[in-house]
Amino acid sequence: MELNGVADLPEIRPGDDIAALVADRAALEPGDVLTVASTIVSKAEGRTADLEDYPVSGRAREIADRLESVAGEEKDPRFAQAIIEESSELLIDCPFLLAETRFGHICPNAGIDRSNVPDHDLLLLPERPTESAERIRSGLAERGIEDVAVIVTDTCGRPFRHGQTGVAIGWAGMPASRDWRGERDRDGHELGVTVQSVVDELAAAANLVTGEGAGGTPAVVVRDWDFGTHEGSDELFRSVEDDLVRQALRTWRADG
Amino acid sequence: MELNGVADLPEIRPGDDIAALVADRAALEPGDVLTVASTIVSKAEGRTADLEDYPVSGRAREIADRLESVAGEEKDPRFAQAIIEESSELLIDCPFLLAETRFGHICPNAGIDRSNVPDHDLLLLPERPTESAERIRSGLAERGIEDVAVIVTDTCGRPFRHGQTGVAIGWAGMPASRDWRGERDRDGHELGVTVQSVVDELAAAANLVTGEGAGGTPAVVVRDWDFGTHEGSDELFRSVEDDLVRQALRTWRADG
Repeated sequence: MELNGVADLPEIRPGDDIAALVADRAALEPGDVLTVASTIVSKAEGRTADLEDYPVSGRAREIADRLESVAGEEKDPRFAQAIIEESSELLIDCPFLLAETRFGHICPNAGIDRSNVPDHDLLLLPERPTESAERIRSGLAERGIEDVAVIVTDTCGRPFRHGQTGVAIGWAGMPASRDWRGERDRDGHELGVTVQSVVDELAAAANLVTGEGAGGTPAVVVRDWDFGTHEGSDELFRSVEDDLVRQALRTWRADG
Repeated sequence: MELNGVADLPEIRPGDDIAALVADRAALEPGDVLTVASTIVSKAEGRTADLEDYPVSGRAREIADRLESVAGEEKDPRFAQAIIEESSELLIDCPFLLAETRFGHICPNAGIDRSNVPDHDLLLLPERPTESAERIRSGLAERGIEDVAVIVTDTCGRPFRHGQTGVAIGWAGMPASRDWRGERDRDGHELGVTVQSVVDELAAAANLVTGEGAGGTPAVVVRDWDFGTHEGSDELFRSVEDDLVRQALRTWRADG
């Protein structure tokens, strides 16, 4: 398996065609996986916003006040309002905001970025990243580049472990997971591992190549990796019913 | 960045020298990262056990009974006992066991594997995986293979997202994380990403190559990846004080 950053992508602006920009700079081949950082997808889709776009609700003011009293530094209630509007649920509202985006991804601040955006205050995540991935994949196909899977990536932290890792938030041309259930080890025992989240592993691998900041390469080509003949699944984001940690957070919030 | 599985490793037995077995099969170079699945590290370290080694305590019986009444299938209280003995805390005890191992890793069943072990019932995780990684790294150095970082990996599920991914449980010759704090994006803004868990990303990437079961390659060589000149940190496992989700799980367990 080989990973290479796509060199010399320009600063992305609203309306830019990411498929075209990548196709001009990378010799993509059938079977490749192309990962694209959500930051450039959002920029191409014009998902920028300004704090003044978010008139502050009572709830946003309450959240900002509480964050301020805990953190001891000024928190902008309009930023809290933006997070509320981008979310379907706030899992944690103090001492930081952990939100489920409307498309099901759970991450701090609903993934809203306050760096990385030149002429505005905020960069929102793509509205439907799987559709974004499908559009890029179709754009490549229109240029004769067939059979390339596309993953839109984000980086975020996680419970239990320090640090952030690359994760997938949208994907096209491949399933999210590879299902090993029913397969056997060398000794004929059923495997302990059942469902492997390959889109997240590909996003994590790509993030090692992407880097951050001025020298970053927000698109990465993965070559010579094969999904294989396993069953696949497109479930990536757990529902509340299927996630004890979310249930515990609800109880804890209700108590607190 | 390039990843290649180490081909033709034999079935690993207690006392086997993993460094020697890998060195004979892969032309390692300075700067490479070698990932090794915890299963083979545990086998080499003789970390197998049998259910009869675990006389059942009252707590183990209680846990097994409760799991059985929820799952509707028989649960062996000796397995619960093994998990208790390998753990410093049970974060969830029903409907499955989520445990913190004595070295700080949080995973289902304290990472005890019931497949993958030919002549025994159980395969435990290495007792101190970072020391295991250091031993393999020293073993390579003794063979004249200098400057290879070593990561011992596990696969496990996580909150919020379906599926399992490769993660690091021990590492040597590199820091666990890369610190981007204080660095700037193209426009001079401070970066949103702060600490990147590179050992977990490398473990995830390697897991794409490793596969599972009969065709698996439990050791993978990562080439042409560079940690760079960033600050590093060796913190990987969060403490309770630093993890709201763990705090929420404690409250929830006390309630339940």
